Amino acid sequence: MTCAILTIGTELTRGELQDSNGAWLADSLSSLGLEVTEIVSVDDHDGRIIETLHRLALTHDAILCTGGLGPTSDDRTTQCVARAMGVPLVRDEASLKLISDLFTNHGRTMTPGNEKQADFPQDAQIFANNHGTAPGFTCQLGHAQLFVMPGVPYEMRAMFKASVIEALPSPSEANICLRLRCFGIPEAEVNDRLSGVEDTFGIQLGYRASNSEIEIKVLARGRDPSLIEDRAERAALQIEERLGPAIYARGAGSLSLTLGEMLSERHLTLGLAESCTGGLASQLITETPGASGYFKGSICCYSNSIKSTVLGVPEEALQEHGAVSEIVARQMAEGAKSILAVDLALAITGVAGPGGGSEDKPVGLVHFAVAGPLETLTEQKIFRGTRVRIQRRAADHGLWLLRQAILS
Amino acid sequence: MTCAILTIGTELTRGELQDSNGAWLADSLSSLGLEVTEIVSVDDHDGRIIETLHRLALTHDAILCTGGLGPTSDDRTTQCVARAMGVPLVRDEASLKLISDLFTNHGRTMTPGNEKQADFPQDAQIFANNHGTAPGFTCQLGHAQLFVMPGVPYEMRAMFKASVIEALPSPSEANICLRLRCFGIPEAEVNDRLSGVEDTFGIQLGYRASNSEIEIKVLARGRDPSLIEDRAERAALQIEERLGPAIYARGAGSLSLTLGEMLSERHLTLGLAESCTGGLASQLITETPGASGYFKGSICCYSNSIKSTVLGVPEEALQEHGAVSEIVARQMAEGAKSILAVDLALAITGVAGPGGGSEDKPVGLVHFAVAGPLETLTEQKIFRGTRVRIQRRAADHGLWLLRQAILS
Repeated sequence: MTCAILTIGTELTRGELQDSNGAWLADSLSSLGLEVTEIVSVDDHDGRIIETLHRLALTHDAILCTGGLGPTSDDRTTQCVARAMGVPLVRDEASLKLISDLFTNHGRTMTPGNEKQADFPQDAQIFANNHGTAPGFTCQLGHAQLFVMPGVPYEMRAMFKASVIEALPSPSEANICLRLRCFGIPEAEVNDRLSGVEDTFGIQLGYRASNSEIEIKVLARGRDPSLIEDRAERAALQIEERLGPAIYARGAGSLSLTLGEMLSERHLTLGLAESCTGGLASQLITETPGASGYFKGSICCYSNSIKSTVLGVPEEALQEHGAVSEIVARQMAEGAKSILAVDLALAITGVAGPGGGSEDKPVGLVHFAVAGPLETLTEQKIFRGTRVRIQRRAADHGLWLLRQAILS
Repeated sequence: MTCAILTIGTELTRGELQDSNGAWLADSLSSLGLEVTEIVSVDDHDGRIIETLHRLALTHDAILCTGGLGPTSDDRTTQCVARAMGVPLVRDEASLKLISDLFTNHGRTMTPGNEKQADFPQDAQIFANNHGTAPGFTCQLGHAQLFVMPGVPYEMRAMFKASVIEALPSPSEANICLRLRCFGIPEAEVNDRLSGVEDTFGIQLGYRASNSEIEIKVLARGRDPSLIEDRAERAALQIEERLGPAIYARGAGSLSLTLGEMLSERHLTLGLAESCTGGLASQLITETPGASGYFKGSICCYSNSIKSTVLGVPEEALQEHGAVSEIVARQMAEGAKSILAVDLALAITGVAGPGGGSEDKPVGLVHFAVAGPLETLTEQKIFRGTRVRIQRRAADHGLWLLRQAILS
C-alpha cells in the first residue's frame, strides 16, 4: 500500500511558491499508517501532467493530487485526468449551483472559467469544497485510486479531513500514531538516545523538527488494535523515561499553548521584558488564542535608555556590567514584574548579531531571568547561527524557562 | 534546456521535514534563465533513487540533486549515482583530509561514516563544502549533467553559489532578471493590472508572494544582452507606473529593511505600542541587522491596564470607546512617542480573534496610529483569515503606514 503525492503548478516549479501541501499530506498519510514514497511537483503542461499521472498509477496504490483546479486557462488538472483516464468531462449541475450560489452570496460575478470548475471526469466521485469554488474528486486511474484536491492549503486540508480520509484505501494493517513533544535536544541526539526503541517495541519512530522543538511520532501497526495500542503506549513511556523532562506534552500543540494552559490553571499572570529577541517571545505567547487571559504585556527595551527609563534598571548597572549581563537581566525581569503588575516576568537580553559581539560577550550569548512571586531565577546560554535563528532559539528558551519556573 | 530537481530523504516523503531546497533552487534556476519542469522528492530507497535518476536523465539537460550525503547508513545518494552511472566509487584523499581537519578543529572524533563522505563516483568533479562535512560533486549521467549537493539548506545554498552556478550549462540565450517589491495588492489583482506587459515588452513575469508582499520578477531573454536589459528596464518602469506607490523597492529585501534604511537616512528614531499584534511588528523590525540604530523599543500593552499605567491612555477613553478604537490607537501612539522618547511611534490595536469580536467590532478590525513630529495619522482596516494571519497582516500594514508617514 504505497502512496504518491503530485502537486501541480508552474508557480511551484519556478520556485515562486514553496509547496507546503506535499509535506502536510505526507505527514497526514504517514500518521494514518500509509507509506509515501514520492512527492512530485510538475508545471502546468498537459503532456507532463498526463505522463506523470500514468507513471505514478503504475507504481502506487493511491495518488493524492493538489492544484490546477482554478478557473483560469492555466488550470489543467481536471482535463488532464480525464485524458489520462480516456473518459470525457461531464458537467455536474449540483456543483455548478453551489459555485454560482457562492458568487451570489459574495455579490460577485461568475466567469465562464468558474463554470469549468463544475466539470469532472465521467464517473468521478465529487468532494464539496466548503471554503472555495473548486470542488475535488476521486476516480480510478489504472490500478491506483486518484484523489484530486484544490491547491489552496486551507481548502485542501479541510477537504482532506472532511472527505478524503474516509475514502482512502485502508492500510493493510491497523495502526496507531502517538505524538510526544520534546524541547531543547537536537534531533541527532534524540535519535541516539532512542536507539533500540523501534526494535524493542516493534514500532516505528518519526521526527518532525521545528526550531527548538521536535515532535516524536510513535507509529505502531499490526492486526490486533489493542496489541498495537499497548505497544505504542509502552514505547511512549520508554521515550518519556529516556528523554526525561525534555518531553513536555503529548499530542499536537506548541510550547506556547502548554505554557498558556499551565498559567491559566494556576491563575498566574505573565509579562515580559525583551531586548535581543525584539518582541518575538511576546509574539509566540500571543499566537495562542485566549492569551489575553494570562498575558498582560511586554516591554521591548531595545535601547539602554528604555531599560532605565521604563523598567528602572539603574544606569550604573548598565555601565558597569553592560546590557548583556546576569544582573541586568535580573533587574529587567524584576522591573517588568513591577511595572506590568504580573505574577511572573521573563527577561531576555543578549547579542543577536551579526554585529555587536566581543571576546567577552560573543554573538549568541543570551542572559535570561524569570522573576516569580518568591525569587528570581537566572540563566545564560550561547546559541549559534544567524541573527534570526539566535533570536528564535532565545525566545523559545525563554518560554521553556518560564515553564521550569512554574514547575519549580 | 530544462532542469529537474531531485531531493532525497525519507524525512521528506514522510512529511517530517518540508523541502525548502526545491523551491529555493527552482527560484535560483529560473532567475538564471533556466526552466525547471519537475521537482521530485523520493525516500532513501536505492531502487527508487536509481530509477528516478535514470528517468530524469532521459528528459532533462540538468539534474540538481540534494540530500543523502550524510555519514549514516540511510545516506544513499553517492552510491546510487555511481550505480546509475555504472562506475565504481573512488576515495578522494584531499576531501578526506578536509573532513578529518574539520573534526580535529572542533575537537570531535571522526566516524567511519564520515570517511564514506570522501568517496565519489569515478571522474566526478568535486565541490568543497565550506560549512559541513559533505562535499558535493558533478558528473555526466546519460546526456544530462548531474549536480549533487548536501541537504542542509545553508550548506547547499553556499555550495550552489560558490561552485554550481559557474558549472551549470548555459541557457541557450542571454537573460536578465529584475526584481520589484510590491506591498498590499493581492496577487490576482497584480496579475490583472499587469496584463499585456509580457507581450508588449517581450518579457516574462513571475511572482513570489509572502504575507502582504509580492516580489515581481521581470525575466528577459534574447541574443543581445543590451537589448534585453533595455526591454527589462522598460517593462519595470511600466510596472512601476501601473502599480504606483505599491512598488516600494527594487531588488531583494523586505519592508523592514527598506523602513530601516529610510529611518537611518533621516536620523529618525522609532518606537511602538502593540496590542493585538502582541510583539510581531516589533519582531519584524528587529529582524533587520542594525535595527538598534533607529529602533528604541516597544510597549506590548496586551491588557487595558497596561495601556493606562504604562502608556497613559485615560481609563475613560478605554471605557467609552473601547480598546479597539481610533482614539485609543491615537493615545497609544502619542503615549509611546513620549515614554519611549522617539521621533515616530506606531500603535496597533485590534481584534485578532477567534474570540472577542462583536457586530460593531468584528474579528479582523484593526486601528492604527502613527504619531510623528508634527501630527498623528490614524487608519482602520479589516483583515480576514485566521488569528495568526490577521496578526501578520496587521503588523505588515503597520510597517507600511510608518513608511507612508515618513514620506508624507
